[in-house]
Amino acid sequence: MSVTAAKGFEASGVAAGIRYARADVALVRSTAPAVGGAMFTRNRVQAACLQLNRAHLEAAEPQAVVVNSGVANAATGTTGFANAADTAAHTAQLLGLATEEILVLSTGVIGMQLPMDRLLPGVASAVGALSADGGRAAAEAIMTTDTVAKQTAVTGDGFTVGGMAKGAGMIHPDLATMLAVLTTDYPLASGEATGLLRPAVDETFNAISIDGDCSTNDMVILLANGASGVVRSEASDAAFAAALQQACADLSRQIVADGEGATVLAEITVAGAADAAQAKAIARRIATSPLVKTALFGHDANWGRVLMAAGSAPWNGGYADVDADRATLRYNGTVVLENGLPTEVEPDVSGPSCAIDLDLGLGDGSATYLTSDLSVDYVRINGEYRS
Amino acid sequence: MSVTAAKGFEASGVAAGIRYARADVALVRSTAPAVGGAMFTRNRVQAACLQLNRAHLEAAEPQAVVVNSGVANAATGTTGFANAADTAAHTAQLLGLATEEILVLSTGVIGMQLPMDRLLPGVASAVGALSADGGRAAAEAIMTTDTVAKQTAVTGDGFTVGGMAKGAGMIHPDLATMLAVLTTDYPLASGEATGLLRPAVDETFNAISIDGDCSTNDMVILLANGASGVVRSEASDAAFAAALQQACADLSRQIVADGEGATVLAEITVAGAADAAQAKAIARRIATSPLVKTALFGHDANWGRVLMAAGSAPWNGGYADVDADRATLRYNGTVVLENGLPTEVEPDVSGPSCAIDLDLGLGDGSATYLTSDLSVDYVRINGEYRS
Repeated sequence: MSVTAAKGFEASGVAAGIRYARADVALVRSTAPAVGGAMFTRNRVQAACLQLNRAHLEAAEPQAVVVNSGVANAATGTTGFANAADTAAHTAQLLGLATEEILVLSTGVIGMQLPMDRLLPGVASAVGALSADGGRAAAEAIMTTDTVAKQTAVTGDGFTVGGMAKGAGMIHPDLATMLAVLTTDYPLASGEATGLLRPAVDETFNAISIDGDCSTNDMVILLANGASGVVRSEASDAAFAAALQQACADLSRQIVADGEGATVLAEITVAGAADAAQAKAIARRIATSPLVKTALFGHDANWGRVLMAAGSAPWNGGYADVDADRATLRYNGTVVLENGLPTEVEPDVSGPSCAIDLDLGLGDGSATYLTSDLSVDYVRINGEYRS
Repeated sequence: MSVTAAKGFEASGVAAGIRYARADVALVRSTAPAVGGAMFTRNRVQAACLQLNRAHLEAAEPQAVVVNSGVANAATGTTGFANAADTAAHTAQLLGLATEEILVLSTGVIGMQLPMDRLLPGVASAVGALSADGGRAAAEAIMTTDTVAKQTAVTGDGFTVGGMAKGAGMIHPDLATMLAVLTTDYPLASGEATGLLRPAVDETFNAISIDGDCSTNDMVILLANGASGVVRSEASDAAFAAALQQACADLSRQIVADGEGATVLAEITVAGAADAAQAKAIARRIATSPLVKTALFGHDANWGRVLMAAGSAPWNGGYADVDADRATLRYNGTVVLENGLPTEVEPDVSGPSCAIDLDLGLGDGSATYLTSDLSVDYVRINGEYRS
């Protein structure tokens, strides 16, 4: 159940004292020649390491990923870019790889420079600590306000997809969420990884929200080294695509369940929308509404707020199609609104998870979004110290 | 300083026991024949009373406005529409007016039917209590989670614009914010009121956000009865437009300052954007970011979150133009980021208001947005009971 679950991968996590008094540098590398791909945040402000990684992915196949937590190295100008490049060069030298074969990830406070005097020795320690059992240590080293490490492993016929992720806050991915590293021993050709990531990410990492804030550092990486020895077929390719999506879904659900201050995990399903894109826009709007999310925290089936949010989902410069008189809404299977009329039945929302199903009765577009509640602790975590 | 400040207006506020143990029905009427206009929320889910008001405004000039708090009469189907129509008919009969001359407003819980057996007697009491001194009582009767009544009066050369509003939550207006009633004794011709409201509302009610949630009931109404006897000129028309905007600005600032749980009032200014529309999109995104708003609550100048939000402002299906390397950011006048490089100077953000000025260095588009912090009390107010 880790980023080293697939054959031919090693990892480590060590404490470098960047910002926290715990492990804060992680390293993942393939011991056999790998191919890889990645997806990046669409935020117009992008961390220095993402700019570097784009260049590296164009020049070479990635063989190792080095990650630090504590400092995001975003909004740090030319100094930040030089620091990301130095981190890659130092890691490459220690591993006997080319600089372009290293991807660099950072997560933490935006607008602060990396303490290179502590980070570079940390990288050296991480190289020394690499092992096939190091997956958990790596997953723990990339945590910020996470309370648990997020790991996955999905086994197919003769191959495995492993992975780790970090989440907790500034989670509203648009393309990918910061810090998911997926590894597989399934054989992929050069250039295939990103194309395989895209549909898996779209249905998983791109359909979750904790606070509606899209990070500057979001990135999902897939490394594939073929160490399983599987001979590819159409059937095995389909099985791999399914395993990859399952691994992404597993990690993204773990991210939402461990959202900053989260006490309730909600699955928002919108059906009967004019089309699938409008369904997703409406599900996203419901999943990011502070009033819907505070009601989840209060275990209050205050469903009028779901209608309010549905009616104001940005779409084509206006709002997506909703006709309240045709809407049917269920909380945990109990109908609270039927074809626009309140049923005056109180659903049971006392548990730690909540299914909200909105059928708009307009067309056949549907979408699902995962979200967490907005709790007093979310505000405390983000208001009472600099996370 | 109230909705009865202009000549020829009466108001009242009485307790009808709709949902709260306090005044919850308000009435405003012009004693001289008035003309009027209104702006409505663009939310696709609209309260029954808004649907009724559109029809009434097409058929007649409004002479009186009846308001209830406690129940929003939104997502209530045909029953809700019939209840709104009955409220108007009852009010009209008691005032000796035509039903179409009455506008009806409701605010409170969505998805609950109005208790007509209590509302209609309340309307009768409100008619009996009408007086030229009733402005404050009316402003108090329209409050929900508001902690103070919002009133204004702006005096021009021989005329007055008065008004009242309610705010507190579900405040992210798009066209108008629920419950602002403006009155003036300036003479307007039939059909002029809405056209005069639009630019005033756009710069005021449409540039504030408390929680990013756009209500189903937002509506701004202007009644003008000409009782000042002012003879119109180009100069007086300009003075009236300015007074109207000032009254709207005064009420919208009061709404943000009294936002649910608000402890900090922030003015977000974006300059140097590619154009004014992108500036407004970026300012709105910053003003609605939970991470920016929790940092305001914590009096933490965690400016990286402002950059993160600026970089992910929805625009034309993507994000608005931002180049972090050209951005300069100030907190209360102190530069924290200059042309993309952190200055490492800590600004003073200990006070109850905060000015955040972001210059993107791209063009000459600018915009300002008012917002409040996201506090522990906001979550408590919206999570711990049904507001």
